[in-house]
Amino acid sequence: MAQQSTRMLRSYVSGGWRTGEGEGVPLHDAVTGAEVARISTAGIDMAAALEHGRRVGGPALRELTFHQRAALLKAVASHLREHRDELYELSAKTGATLGDSKFDVDGGIGVLFAYSSKGKRELPNDTVYVDGGVEPLSKGGTFLGQHIATPLRGVAVQINAFNFPVWGPLEKFAPAFLAGVPSLVKPASQTAYLTERIVELIIESGLIPEGTLQLISGSAGDLLDHLTEQDLVSFTGSASTAQKLRTHPVIVRQAVRFNAEADSLNCSILGPDAKPGTAEFDLYVKQLVTEMTVKAGQKCTAIRRAFVPAELLDDVAEAAAERLAKVKIGNPASEGVRMGALASLEQREEVRRSLKALQDASSIVFGDPERVEVVDADAERGAFISPVLLKGDADRAEPHEVEAFGPVSTLMPYTSVEQVVGYAARGQGSLAGSVVTGDAQFAREVVLGVAPWHGRLLVLDADDAKESTGHGSPMPGLVHGGPGRAGGGEEMGGIRGVLHHMQRTAVQGSPKVLTAVTGRWVEGAPRNTGDVHPFRKSLAELKIGDSVVAGPRTVTQEDVDHFAEFTGDTFYAHTDPEAAAANPLFGGIVAHGYLVVSFAAGLFVSPEPGPVLANYGLENLRFLTPVKPGDALTVTLTAKQITPRENADYGEVRWDADVTNQNDESVAKYDVLTLVAKENNR
Amino acid sequence: MAQQSTRMLRSYVSGGWRTGEGEGVPLHDAVTGAEVARISTAGIDMAAALEHGRRVGGPALRELTFHQRAALLKAVASHLREHRDELYELSAKTGATLGDSKFDVDGGIGVLFAYSSKGKRELPNDTVYVDGGVEPLSKGGTFLGQHIATPLRGVAVQINAFNFPVWGPLEKFAPAFLAGVPSLVKPASQTAYLTERIVELIIESGLIPEGTLQLISGSAGDLLDHLTEQDLVSFTGSASTAQKLRTHPVIVRQAVRFNAEADSLNCSILGPDAKPGTAEFDLYVKQLVTEMTVKAGQKCTAIRRAFVPAELLDDVAEAAAERLAKVKIGNPASEGVRMGALASLEQREEVRRSLKALQDASSIVFGDPERVEVVDADAERGAFISPVLLKGDADRAEPHEVEAFGPVSTLMPYTSVEQVVGYAARGQGSLAGSVVTGDAQFAREVVLGVAPWHGRLLVLDADDAKESTGHGSPMPGLVHGGPGRAGGGEEMGGIRGVLHHMQRTAVQGSPKVLTAVTGRWVEGAPRNTGDVHPFRKSLAELKIGDSVVAGPRTVTQEDVDHFAEFTGDTFYAHTDPEAAAANPLFGGIVAHGYLVVSFAAGLFVSPEPGPVLANYGLENLRFLTPVKPGDALTVTLTAKQITPRENADYGEVRWDADVTNQNDESVAKYDVLTLVAKENNR
Repeated sequence: MAQQSTRMLRSYVSGGWRTGEGEGVPLHDAVTGAEVARISTAGIDMAAALEHGRRVGGPALRELTFHQRAALLKAVASHLREHRDELYELSAKTGATLGDSKFDVDGGIGVLFAYSSKGKRELPNDTVYVDGGVEPLSKGGTFLGQHIATPLRGVAVQINAFNFPVWGPLEKFAPAFLAGVPSLVKPASQTAYLTERIVELIIESGLIPEGTLQLISGSAGDLLDHLTEQDLVSFTGSASTAQKLRTHPVIVRQAVRFNAEADSLNCSILGPDAKPGTAEFDLYVKQLVTEMTVKAGQKCTAIRRAFVPAELLDDVAEAAAERLAKVKIGNPASEGVRMGALASLEQREEVRRSLKALQDASSIVFGDPERVEVVDADAERGAFISPVLLKGDADRAEPHEVEAFGPVSTLMPYTSVEQVVGYAARGQGSLAGSVVTGDAQFAREVVLGVAPWHGRLLVLDADDAKESTGHGSPMPGLVHGGPGRAGGGEEMGGIRGVLHHMQRTAVQGSPKVLTAVTGRWVEGAPRNTGDVHPFRKSLAELKIGDSVVAGPRTVTQEDVDHFAEFTGDTFYAHTDPEAAAANPLFGGIVAHGYLVVSFAAGLFVSPEPGPVLANYGLENLRFLTPVKPGDALTVTLTAKQITPRENADYGEVRWDADVTNQNDESVAKYDVLTLVAKENNR
Repeated sequence: MAQQSTRMLRSYVSGGWRTGEGEGVPLHDAVTGAEVARISTAGIDMAAALEHGRRVGGPALRELTFHQRAALLKAVASHLREHRDELYELSAKTGATLGDSKFDVDGGIGVLFAYSSKGKRELPNDTVYVDGGVEPLSKGGTFLGQHIATPLRGVAVQINAFNFPVWGPLEKFAPAFLAGVPSLVKPASQTAYLTERIVELIIESGLIPEGTLQLISGSAGDLLDHLTEQDLVSFTGSASTAQKLRTHPVIVRQAVRFNAEADSLNCSILGPDAKPGTAEFDLYVKQLVTEMTVKAGQKCTAIRRAFVPAELLDDVAEAAAERLAKVKIGNPASEGVRMGALASLEQREEVRRSLKALQDASSIVFGDPERVEVVDADAERGAFISPVLLKGDADRAEPHEVEAFGPVSTLMPYTSVEQVVGYAARGQGSLAGSVVTGDAQFAREVVLGVAPWHGRLLVLDADDAKESTGHGSPMPGLVHGGPGRAGGGEEMGGIRGVLHHMQRTAVQGSPKVLTAVTGRWVEGAPRNTGDVHPFRKSLAELKIGDSVVAGPRTVTQEDVDHFAEFTGDTFYAHTDPEAAAANPLFGGIVAHGYLVVSFAAGLFVSPEPGPVLANYGLENLRFLTPVKPGDALTVTLTAKQITPRENADYGEVRWDADVTNQNDESVAKYDVLTLVAKENNR
């Protein structure tokens, strides 16, 4: 089969494209068996590649703020989107149908967009991440703690599986890039030509700084021997390889952060309410068949164990078999083909081996492991296999332990919630699970019962079916990973995935020092109450700590009466002296909280047009001391955090508001959120 | 020396006290060398102990809410506090001075109190932890994601170091207990008699459910062979043992959560501003000497590397030597003794060996490794050693790699920020570091420079010195742990430490299902707008989803004018039509945000005395659509979260408030926080 003319895949390391030495290993088209390319990393200097990432990529990334990195991710995503068709075409060689390819390619691009958007919305336009609130460590308030997160100073080594050559690298790259950590991508050889093209498109776009993305096409060689405590390794693949990597002497000695995501024996549970004829019954069967056939079942999240109420087992088996019979298998390029080939002939052999082991504890409901009818292809030369649905005994070990990484699932009966929760746990840790039921109480019991064994759980019902992304789809905003057999790791999960690339550090110091370190004003730090009202300052002029102190204004009984009447808020504590006196917290008439913050705004406002455009919100408001008629209010407003927007002529300013009474007690504290223009053009 | 009469320490496993078989290993008083006790776990069934924790302890803990667990921690802490004197006495046998003992004993009890308080304030009075916000996953809002955390269903195996026999076990036990995970404590043999007593006091108090705390006094035997993916291991001790445990085949195969905290070569950096005569110079020297001598330097957080500006090196050396000369060493029971013995003669041998290696790259400023004057003790029979201050070359490897786990530090000169940041990084990961400077900008540069190598960083200056807890003290609210050499782990950190014992799971489903799973009302879930206003319902009667819809109320131009005049908030967007029209966000007069929320309160309030006692705050307020004169406002208030207090006759209710206009657009969304009585007694 080998065609000597195929080219050697290239690696992108140390600032240039390199080709491995020697003959390399041939890679084959999953459908035709024809050689697609060769692969080798012989002669490539892995230590230099890591050092290039650390010395060139890392510093360049750390110069950028989170928002600037987010903007670059968006640009990269848009660029890749323009090249989708080319990528689909290349993807077909992996055995993927167009649907499969979209799942991989569009999914990967979608992760970039999602991280760009999350970075902009949920991270500061700064280089330091402030993690959680200020921790009071002393009575006098001169000594405080604040956790921060800073990017690790090493390289994120990303070792990917063959089944998602686009999504896999991109879902690891996006959070690393946003965190400020350069990536070194090592795809599985089998489908590395697709990852090579993705990296080529990104590098050639010139959009991202040199050294922030490198590629190793082929064996990792001695790469891991050169890791330091500042590098990290994210691995997706088999449990056995995960174990080998996890115990690598350098990873162990340096306590290198190691994240594994291994395919697991995921389950899907049908609720007892979902009898034939219900929407949930149909959803369950449809989803089961989809999970078996998308990517020919080569998804680490695919359903391997399908638990159904004992009395519904035959109905489900029948309905699923009927659906499976309609799935056209063959050349992904051909019209109507719903399931393509496995990634290689070796993969097929492995699936057949696993099927033999499974059959010791189960019988076949649908499909023949050795025979399949295919369209426009050679069923033997291409890595084709029939979907195989089994019916098994959940009290046996095999269905919980043996994974056939292909279009294979096992149906098993259960008779109670406790029993099915126990069965689900026998998977010893899964990436994803699903419960299909119209009964929210059943959903609650199962979800809380099996959650400790799962990274993600989908509850599918008639309410969410139309918009649901399904059992098998990891989402950028949700964690992807699971305990135990699933590798014990966690990827994505929105900003959580960014923080996995950063070191969390508790910083202890005075308010002034914490303000200097974090760039956010911390209570107790110096305030600057200069001549200019801070609302007269543009973003360019405003400094953290700029303040205005305004007041006092005395709250009268008439104010309270009037406010009650005007707003309609005649709550007894504001209006009925006798009842108010009996209130255990007030012991007499109190001013409305809304009156207090309204008066405070009247005190701190600077009315004329200026850089402050709007008050768009308020956060963490706490009424700390009741305000009684006769109390005199003073408000201190202090610029706490300044977040210029990258693509607008304004940004956000968060102000610390502290309203005090005549005894200097705080009566209300809160954050005022405003939009402020970058330039003062009035 | 062996006195055959000493008793065998006991283990508490599987519901009873057990004594190991055989002769056991003798443990010696660090001061006198006399045998204190013997230790053995021979014959103890480790698998049964783990299973007892899983089958008895776990379920009992999971029955309790976070607040109930928090209350038990407080009771345990109070109980132990009553027995402090007895514990100090026992602690003296470990070579500890009274000050050292307080550090260990009071520190440990303090962690219990801190976790009790944090659990009550920062966790719900529920069994499920809701992690982060709702993740929108679809346009129509029928499909959402929500992360939850549930307790692992295994046992937290806690392997502790010899130097903190009280604090060590308690700082691991507290977050595990609060999370709902039973603990199995394995102290280091050397000082296990103190841990034994602590566990005995707790068990005999009868305060905590059986199976939630077990003790193994002696070797762990085959304990680790019986771990599952639901168990976890927290280890404190040497880097080499950490590596051995990390690669244990069962830990690797089951991806058992493994947290290591290993002693590291922590640094303390003096700022160039801190010349002799400044407060910071004195603080630096004093802290250095304290860190060398407290617990005879046997603290994993102690300062091993002291970096000072080259021009200040001699001054620091001189001042430190002078202070060290005043430290009285000897029998901790004797008056005026400031430093006791190392934990054992073996430890002293190890310190002397390490000192030899260090001296290859440094010279002694103070102390003699082989000779020390002691008070009321035999310097050879007891494990005494002199504090040793070295002066070294930071460009050599030894000071960054060799740790003498005793009263030993090395002074080293530096000449620039970049250089000292580089030196600090050569520790390859530390638990704690400190910067002593009065220059906030220098503090910022150093902190952000060295943060990726540190779990905790203290900035000490004249402002916080009086209240600072010092370089060496981990705090329950702050993370304890560090990257690389420090083990790569993370303990405590407030609620973070609780979450380390829980599995994070992304749950996907409809709003109704997420509400059922989390016990919190999620937008889009059904509302119950019954006949009774929800403010008339006590905590006992109120249900998640109970709602009131009120309105509409039209906002008039007069309302806006009046509100501006009444409150003084005459911001131009409310008062000047021409200027308001030029505002890019409003394009005309808008109502005050405070007017909108005040009117909303007027609409949803139920004025008569009843179970709702007060509105104590507001959160996450966002003004989404400008309200113009003529707009008609409707507000929908929905019970979102109900948190009864354990020790009060009321609790908190969080309400979802959604203010809409006549076009059903949301103009403002926020959470209203109220206190509500448990019973409706009016």
